[in-house]
Amino acid sequence: MKQHSFPFSLAKPLALLVCILLSLSGSAQQKAAITRVDPTFWWVGMKDQNLQLLVYGPNAGTFRYSIDYPGVTLVKTHTVENPNYAFLDLTLAPQTKAGTFTLTGRNGNQKLTRQYELKARTHEPKAQGVNTSDFIYLVLPDRFANADPKNDAFKNMADTQADRSNPFLRHGGDLKGIQNHLGYFEELGATALWLNPIIENDQPLTEEGGTQRSAYHGYAFTDHYQVDRRLGGNDAYKKLIQAAHTRGMKVVQDAVYNHVGSNHWFIKDLPSKDWLNQWPAYTNTSHKFQPTIDPHAAQADYEVLRKGWFVPHMPDLNQNNPFVANYLIQHALWTVEHFGVDAWRIDTYLYNEDEFMNRCNQALLNEYPTIHIFGESWVNNVLAQARFVQNTINFPFKSNQPGTLDFVLFNAINDALNQNFGWDEGVSKIHQTLAQDAVYQDPMKLVTFLDNHDMNRYFSVIGEDLNKYKMGMTWLLTLRGIPSLYYGTEILMKNFKDPSDAEVRKDFPGGFAGDKENKFTAAGRTERENEAFNFVKKLAQYRKNTPALHSGKLTQFVPQEGIYVYFRHDEKKTVMVATNSTDKEAELKTERYKERLQGFSKARNVLTDQHLNTLTTIKIPAKTALVLELQP
Amino acid sequence: MKQHSFPFSLAKPLALLVCILLSLSGSAQQKAAITRVDPTFWWVGMKDQNLQLLVYGPNAGTFRYSIDYPGVTLVKTHTVENPNYAFLDLTLAPQTKAGTFTLTGRNGNQKLTRQYELKARTHEPKAQGVNTSDFIYLVLPDRFANADPKNDAFKNMADTQADRSNPFLRHGGDLKGIQNHLGYFEELGATALWLNPIIENDQPLTEEGGTQRSAYHGYAFTDHYQVDRRLGGNDAYKKLIQAAHTRGMKVVQDAVYNHVGSNHWFIKDLPSKDWLNQWPAYTNTSHKFQPTIDPHAAQADYEVLRKGWFVPHMPDLNQNNPFVANYLIQHALWTVEHFGVDAWRIDTYLYNEDEFMNRCNQALLNEYPTIHIFGESWVNNVLAQARFVQNTINFPFKSNQPGTLDFVLFNAINDALNQNFGWDEGVSKIHQTLAQDAVYQDPMKLVTFLDNHDMNRYFSVIGEDLNKYKMGMTWLLTLRGIPSLYYGTEILMKNFKDPSDAEVRKDFPGGFAGDKENKFTAAGRTERENEAFNFVKKLAQYRKNTPALHSGKLTQFVPQEGIYVYFRHDEKKTVMVATNSTDKEAELKTERYKERLQGFSKARNVLTDQHLNTLTTIKIPAKTALVLELQP
Repeated sequence: MKQHSFPFSLAKPLALLVCILLSLSGSAQQKAAITRVDPTFWWVGMKDQNLQLLVYGPNAGTFRYSIDYPGVTLVKTHTVENPNYAFLDLTLAPQTKAGTFTLTGRNGNQKLTRQYELKARTHEPKAQGVNTSDFIYLVLPDRFANADPKNDAFKNMADTQADRSNPFLRHGGDLKGIQNHLGYFEELGATALWLNPIIENDQPLTEEGGTQRSAYHGYAFTDHYQVDRRLGGNDAYKKLIQAAHTRGMKVVQDAVYNHVGSNHWFIKDLPSKDWLNQWPAYTNTSHKFQPTIDPHAAQADYEVLRKGWFVPHMPDLNQNNPFVANYLIQHALWTVEHFGVDAWRIDTYLYNEDEFMNRCNQALLNEYPTIHIFGESWVNNVLAQARFVQNTINFPFKSNQPGTLDFVLFNAINDALNQNFGWDEGVSKIHQTLAQDAVYQDPMKLVTFLDNHDMNRYFSVIGEDLNKYKMGMTWLLTLRGIPSLYYGTEILMKNFKDPSDAEVRKDFPGGFAGDKENKFTAAGRTERENEAFNFVKKLAQYRKNTPALHSGKLTQFVPQEGIYVYFRHDEKKTVMVATNSTDKEAELKTERYKERLQGFSKARNVLTDQHLNTLTTIKIPAKTALVLELQP
Repeated sequence: MKQHSFPFSLAKPLALLVCILLSLSGSAQQKAAITRVDPTFWWVGMKDQNLQLLVYGPNAGTFRYSIDYPGVTLVKTHTVENPNYAFLDLTLAPQTKAGTFTLTGRNGNQKLTRQYELKARTHEPKAQGVNTSDFIYLVLPDRFANADPKNDAFKNMADTQADRSNPFLRHGGDLKGIQNHLGYFEELGATALWLNPIIENDQPLTEEGGTQRSAYHGYAFTDHYQVDRRLGGNDAYKKLIQAAHTRGMKVVQDAVYNHVGSNHWFIKDLPSKDWLNQWPAYTNTSHKFQPTIDPHAAQADYEVLRKGWFVPHMPDLNQNNPFVANYLIQHALWTVEHFGVDAWRIDTYLYNEDEFMNRCNQALLNEYPTIHIFGESWVNNVLAQARFVQNTINFPFKSNQPGTLDFVLFNAINDALNQNFGWDEGVSKIHQTLAQDAVYQDPMKLVTFLDNHDMNRYFSVIGEDLNKYKMGMTWLLTLRGIPSLYYGTEILMKNFKDPSDAEVRKDFPGGFAGDKENKFTAAGRTERENEAFNFVKKLAQYRKNTPALHSGKLTQFVPQEGIYVYFRHDEKKTVMVATNSTDKEAELKTERYKERLQGFSKARNVLTDQHLNTLTTIKIPAKTALVLELQP
């Protein structure tokens, strides 16, 4: 979150103005043309009958457009500062047939035409959502598995390199590589894949602290309608999703609305100055969320959070510009419809404009009522987290987002594993965090995690302690919410973010040609790695088949002496999770839990398959979370 | 908050039953009588026309009662397990005249009579409330000033000792002693007094860890209708309040509903087993508030918090018993009406039953719409704090309490003074806490503090650093809410609670005969103490005359590099508070604050009376909070 120096001139309004003026004067001499229409195609039969086409090309904005196609009405044409753009408002009547219409532009004697396809909607699975029955596996595509070395780098892209020896350059992982390991995810018990962004990041290398860095992370889009060629392009993404669906797995798309890459095609020829949030001098976002909840907030703090730039090479989109908003919303719909994406993770959620986010979410929810949406709002308290999801607080602004990543529980789990037990410390943190769930309309829709691509890796944070590893993993897989796992955690991949993010984004061993180790197989894993892998697998597979761990009620008891006990229970099953977070074996007297133990006298230890013939007292080894399926 | 052993037999139901049975059989031979009626008297012309009399005496519950007085109707007589009690429901018609009626009881040939007074309501000031224009001074009456050594101890009370050399025994402070120093409070700038409870605590000494302890703290009531004789009794309390009102000062009563002393008269002859929250074996409250907010809470945890006992010698009242509830509520009304109390501080608020508390608050608010009520809910997060006050969260239970003591801001100020500045540390804590104010219907009604009688003293917690002292004091007196100060903080009284609470409840030097020092006067204070005293005085007096610091809007800016800036502003005045929490002088560029500096070019430093002729940059010494009254 450091502030960067500013190498990118577009945020300087003078430079921008020059840029637009050049474009204006230059285009007069250039042959008029339509070189792009976004969305690249659309569908008939969508619930929303409106469609706004961005028409781009030299002087494309100086033409009057017409469409002659049954059911399609061109309601209005908008022009903007830059004559190379026109925005066309269309309506598509409900009975409009699939087909291709001709968009015709006229300007005096000049005429432009462009074919535009309206597809029929398919019945392939899409927008299935993710819910508490799922277990999400998060993959950074460049770093997981390389199926096609031919697409690792392209000479005609801004960054021409792929080099596995350099942590900051692209390594060549691709979507086919991920597809090739669907069986691996399935074996582990994952039911959904979340990929860090797969959209084209045709960015040049940037320099930070004397080091050249690539956009291998994917968060700097340069063309919304292209999946990055180095990942395999649109076809590979569609195929991966189809293959996942065939296995009953779901795919979560990582969406970015707040910013794009500085090399985005429309950044190089901005439609208008207000396409971006512009500042007199480069202004970084504060990364401080408080102004969004604070009734006492200074307006200046609000502006810098929302309109400040994330980093200099990621210009900040002005979502208050209606053309920008429409562009982003339609792209979201297009993506779900075209690729069959099931759920939607939203990057830097709290940096986006509120009204825009609600409009965007509502558009997805209207078209796809079963989709799940969960954003990244990196906050440090429950109240702020609730602000960005459907909540029970009368904030001046009501969010309609169904879910959110649960950063507060992440912090609590971290503290539970690394602090000694205390009145407010250690496992008390988990208890106290969940005790605040009343602020969410549905805490079950939160996505929980132990780490991610922006964080120190879980196994390192807990001092590579396998007992702690199992405790935390058990909480993840048995507490409320939708659990997610960052790739490699199951094979004990480790590292801290210091000196750089790249440390926690290492290649999955076995995913790349020439790898000496193959951690995708039991034989390639060490004993310890297998112990971890098998633990996750056993618990995830049990979870998969145990609805009480999905939709069952959670009942938790105040931790005492380092022992934290909770139950997940529905009409059919009760699972008791009893954690001894201390360094000594505990003999737990269960009298206190009788309200949930009523009717049960025995239990099966889900992780060891051992049977407990009494529940009056339960032995819990040090640093252990027992998972007990109760029996009459 | 340690758990105590259990020396008190009444919580053992068997013993209790025996006790009641003895009472039953014994009372048959005892001459019937009415020895007590509570409330001890009442008023005509109250808004609530209902009155429930507790009639007590040998076999008083075996009589049929009648009243013959115009406007007074005896609607119903209730009997309970113990025949020594009757509860009489009366209504008082609106035009009922003041006077004394005869309560007549008949049982066969036996007849009992008792006179009962209905007073006329006076027009003396009462229930004036405290608000943001006030500055509350909290006094522990036994430890402040002893005006009358004759009332220090009484031979016919359960605890016959007063001994200033023993920190755990009574020291002899009294209400007249407080009254004698009204000028001192006024000089300091305090506008309201909050006294730790003044109601009779006729408790024997209790033993804890081998030490005999008295109930000098006042939280173990033994007769609701008597102010403790050792403090001067009812008359002294009434006189103190009248004297305070004459000076324009207000008085806050410390109310305790959750428990009473084990020597309370009704505990010695319980009306019914369910008068108290009874347990099979002594059960201490958990002191864990989470079950009150937690949608996942175990019922057992909720019960132990609410119905567990605070300590063994303070039996826990069952507020779900309607006679208990009426008794407590009527006592509250009686107290405000009789003594003219202005505001109501409620002890251990969160341990009380929700429905009872709302009924109780509503009764006070209905009768006295201008009263202020603020409870003690010792929690560690804003969400939980909001749960016990009028809030904006859709909790299943909606509290109607107008205010609350702000424990979360207390913690934040503590951290702000004792942590180095960081993303989430140091002064960031204050900013982040206030940023969560959206959960309160009115955060201005919260009562803020730096410490109290249950805490390590402020000056010790900050390492006796006078710069920190001034910073924290400045925040207290310029941030939102109603500030309160614990006695002696203004003269740098110090100490930690270890080894005992008594360490932070030392006598105010000069309040007791034979004191070598008299800190009530400048001459009696050291230079450093005068520096502290004069600082508080200067700021409190400024605050008193500056409505912008009462009701003015608060606008705060995200702290940067240890600098925390906020403004209090109304249409007439803008006060800028600029804190440099670092160890180095800062040169603050104010461009960032322009939204609040607009129209101002100069300022007066309120604390030094120096003038600033420019606001472009402002020098702030290390560890200093400037208070600047802005000028055009």
